[in-house]
Amino acid sequence: MQNIHIEYFIKLLGKDNAYFDKAHLLAYSYDATRKKHLPDGVLFPRDESDVSKILKYCNDNQIIVIPRGAGSGFTGGSLAVNGGIILSFEKHMNKILEIDLENMVAVVQPGVINMDLQKVVEDHGLFYPPDPASQNYSTIGGNVSENAGGMRAAKYGITKDYIMALRAVLPNGDIIRAGKKTIKDVAGYNIAGILVASEGSLAIITEITLKLISKPKLVKTAMGVFNSVNDAMNAVYKTLASGVKPVAMEFLDSLSIQAVEKRFNKGLPTDAGAILITDVDGDIEEALINDLAKIEKLFKENGATKFTVAKDENERANLWFSRRNCSQAITCYGSLKLNEDITVPRSKLPSLLEKIAEISKKFRVTTPCFGHTGDGNVHTNVMVDKDDPEAVKRGYAAIEEIFKATIELGGTLSGEHGIGISKAPYMKLAFSDEEMNLFRAIKKAFDPNNILNPNKMGL
Amino acid sequence: MQNIHIEYFIKLLGKDNAYFDKAHLLAYSYDATRKKHLPDGVLFPRDESDVSKILKYCNDNQIIVIPRGAGSGFTGGSLAVNGGIILSFEKHMNKILEIDLENMVAVVQPGVINMDLQKVVEDHGLFYPPDPASQNYSTIGGNVSENAGGMRAAKYGITKDYIMALRAVLPNGDIIRAGKKTIKDVAGYNIAGILVASEGSLAIITEITLKLISKPKLVKTAMGVFNSVNDAMNAVYKTLASGVKPVAMEFLDSLSIQAVEKRFNKGLPTDAGAILITDVDGDIEEALINDLAKIEKLFKENGATKFTVAKDENERANLWFSRRNCSQAITCYGSLKLNEDITVPRSKLPSLLEKIAEISKKFRVTTPCFGHTGDGNVHTNVMVDKDDPEAVKRGYAAIEEIFKATIELGGTLSGEHGIGISKAPYMKLAFSDEEMNLFRAIKKAFDPNNILNPNKMGL
Ligand SMILES: Cc1cc2nc3c(=O)[nH]c(=O)nc-3n(C[C@H](O)[C@H](O)[C@H](O)COP(=O)(O)OP(=O)(O)OC[C@H]3O[C@@H](n4cnc5c(N)ncnc54)[C@H](O)[C@@H]3O)c2cc1C
Ligand SMILES: Cc1cc2nc3c(=O)[nH]c(=O)nc-3n(C[C@H](O)[C@H](O)[C@H](O)COP(=O)(O)OP(=O)(O)OC[C@H]3O[C@@H](n4cnc5c(N)ncnc54)[C@H](O)[C@@H]3O)c2cc1C
Repeated sequence: MQNIHIEYFIKLLGKDNAYFDKAHLLAYSYDATRKKHLPDGVLFPRDESDVSKILKYCNDNQIIVIPRGAGSGFTGGSLAVNGGIILSFEKHMNKILEIDLENMVAVVQPGVINMDLQKVVEDHGLFYPPDPASQNYSTIGGNVSENAGGMRAAKYGITKDYIMALRAVLPNGDIIRAGKKTIKDVAGYNIAGILVASEGSLAIITEITLKLISKPKLVKTAMGVFNSVNDAMNAVYKTLASGVKPVAMEFLDSLSIQAVEKRFNKGLPTDAGAILITDVDGDIEEALINDLAKIEKLFKENGATKFTVAKDENERANLWFSRRNCSQAITCYGSLKLNEDITVPRSKLPSLLEKIAEISKKFRVTTPCFGHTGDGNVHTNVMVDKDDPEAVKRGYAAIEEIFKATIELGGTLSGEHGIGISKAPYMKLAFSDEEMNLFRAIKKAFDPNNILNPNKMGL
Repeated sequence: MQNIHIEYFIKLLGKDNAYFDKAHLLAYSYDATRKKHLPDGVLFPRDESDVSKILKYCNDNQIIVIPRGAGSGFTGGSLAVNGGIILSFEKHMNKILEIDLENMVAVVQPGVINMDLQKVVEDHGLFYPPDPASQNYSTIGGNVSENAGGMRAAKYGITKDYIMALRAVLPNGDIIRAGKKTIKDVAGYNIAGILVASEGSLAIITEITLKLISKPKLVKTAMGVFNSVNDAMNAVYKTLASGVKPVAMEFLDSLSIQAVEKRFNKGLPTDAGAILITDVDGDIEEALINDLAKIEKLFKENGATKFTVAKDENERANLWFSRRNCSQAITCYGSLKLNEDITVPRSKLPSLLEKIAEISKKFRVTTPCFGHTGDGNVHTNVMVDKDDPEAVKRGYAAIEEIFKATIELGGTLSGEHGIGISKAPYMKLAFSDEEMNLFRAIKKAFDPNNILNPNKMGL
């Protein structure tokens, strides 16, 4: 980074908000992919006007800018793969600006942590459903930019379903608003619609207006135990097609169950082929009991050998702890985890899991699977020894075949983690040249000088 | 239209699908704005491949193309304001392609009529909530392109909330897919997100994949009677902020009530200042009764003088007939209706309606109001005598002030009808130059030669 630029940023933001020392560059060189790319500087804008000035300056001087939330992304979206300036919102732009009870709306800055918002909202008897497993640290700005999902998506949808309006800064420094604090707004193009899941490559989001709903009074959790993955997958889609609307329908295969048990000892059935953890919620006890009865019936019709309802908050917490800590527990199967979040139409889950088993066998890799099967999303983890290059190669080969199978089944490369750099090589499996050209034209419309998080998403 | 082009289209589609005679041009020169613009030709593509060939040809030859659904749009979106070719899907591309019960999804062509889809879906025990008052004739292609709302939006959202995937043809003839038959898909930019409500100006939608939900078993309808509009508006937002989730919360002011009664005699309370019609639904009778009790309590706390629950299907039908036919009934107040669909945050409804009353008085116009107040949307109808130029002028002046007041209250020019040509002059009230520039850049990214429905939306 040239001195003249460093001086500009320090003058603009003050020494406390603009860093170019090795320690800071290192601290902002990682995300959850564990890849490492040193940026040229780290800036902490104090407000939207700072963001605008920084972008205008960088646009005029061809300096790359990478917005960064908590760096919990799984696909390298916040990595400075070509150097550039990291823009972090964690220091200043991290305020909940308004909880509007009259309209059931929250207005937040991008650096607000998901869980902090949830807590404040719930203190008001309201509810913000999107709850990625990273909720304790991931930011709303990152959630919007990846269109994060979570455990409650089967009933309540994902981040995009809660975005009413955004404020954002374009690469040229222009400040724009998109949407209103209204349920409906069809004036002009749906800019908020294209900014969701744009992975920080079109604009920097500076304010988010989110729809809230009222908090259901009651939740109950149950577990279905199955002999085989196939039975469990049939149970998922047939249960949901019956019209019952569980909050969550989460899946653990036997490898995941065993890993969690070995590590945390929460009492999961280690002889099971698969389990499904499901939540139902609402305001009327009778309705929840009805829903659980329906789910039990459908699970059993599809081969469940056992169906247990958590008796108290402790049992509930144990089940959810098990699910939330799968990601960590399965590291016992290999020092390198190639984790994907492929998603298929729910009725294709049985075929998908069958395919994954075949491919794992063919490439001699261990592939624990778990995830948000209620929305067709399977976290597929190809585990290999990172120090065995031949095994790593087999792992990547398996991943590519798994992507191909997913797309053949009408599915997508990513249900929630985005493309970033990790999945960029596979974009051509999923999109035609015409589609890629359209993505590039949109990127260019927003960012003609290609300064904002360039070379991500296969663009 | 040059003969060479006419010959090309006839050769491509056959004589039965390409018309250039006066009668056809006239028949496709209108929409619900009652404005008239003759196109140069009317084409009925048989499939997506026809659409692609037509667009490629028109792009190469700088011929304007205007996609058209049923022409029920209120803002002139399907009018050939600068001539060009009308593309209509009503003849061939009007099939329901699939009702996928396993995934609760419908796949349809753009020319399918909203009500036809609803019926087929309900025969399967499923439910497609978006129900614009034009449901008997408006098409899903038009609904997607305007992001149509309806009576059930307060609980169930609007068209965009049901779009899982689209197929579309770009102005250069490229065929693209956007989204999947999955609940989640974050690979690539959210093209479906920007195509919704793009008013046929970015791409031609050739196939729509829609999320379905299960049909609630029970519905109940009630009416709250209020002395004043202000009481009714307070009741709306306070009821919804309480957490109760009615399907609909529709409003009629006294002018609307009186017009409907005079014309249809359905037994509405003609001495009321305003009424609210509300629906609740679900599977459990007790829950519906609870919801109605809560709504009654909140209505009465906010000044309702009466609250009656429809006793049977006939009473329900009468109430909904009254609401659905407001638009027609109020024509008694003037031969020219300047009808807007402004939308504000719900808590601003009392202020908005106060403002509208002031403005009506100031400009000496009659302004019956009704609409989807459950989502903050008020159909505001400035009624004047079309043969009195001075009155028409006052009418437009009133409209402009109403828009200004709406925007000041944090609202939008349009909740559901779009901009088209009718609201194009007001775009500058709502959007900054920077925002308009972004819209133009997006238009250019999709349609560099500006052949697709040009000069709409203030672009
Ligand atoms: C243990 C674990 C569990 C996880 N579970 C889930 C899960 O259940 N569901 C799920 O969806 N994800 C999950 N994730 C992935 C990750 O947490 C999400 O993608 C999250 O949304 C990222 O938020 P972040 O604040 O960490 O963003 P970052 O990782 O810092 O950034 C993500 C992307 O957003 C961009 N960005 C960030 N802020 C802005 C802004 N203000 N404007 C424009 N662009 C911006 C960045 O440039 C980057 O491209 C998990 C991650 C971990 C480590
Ligand atoms: C009595 C009445 C009541 C109404 N009530 C409501 C209501 O409650 N809620 C509501 O939202 N609207 C309502 N409307 C407005 C109108 O019905 C909606 O905007 C509807 O969605 C338009 O559908 P259409 O098929 O008539 O489309 P058209 O009017 O023919 O076209 C609308 C726009 O969509 C574009 N378009 C059409 N098909 C395609 C395609 N396949 N690809 C790309 N672009 C396309 C056109 O170019 C045009 O810009 C009402 C209208 C009337 C007359």
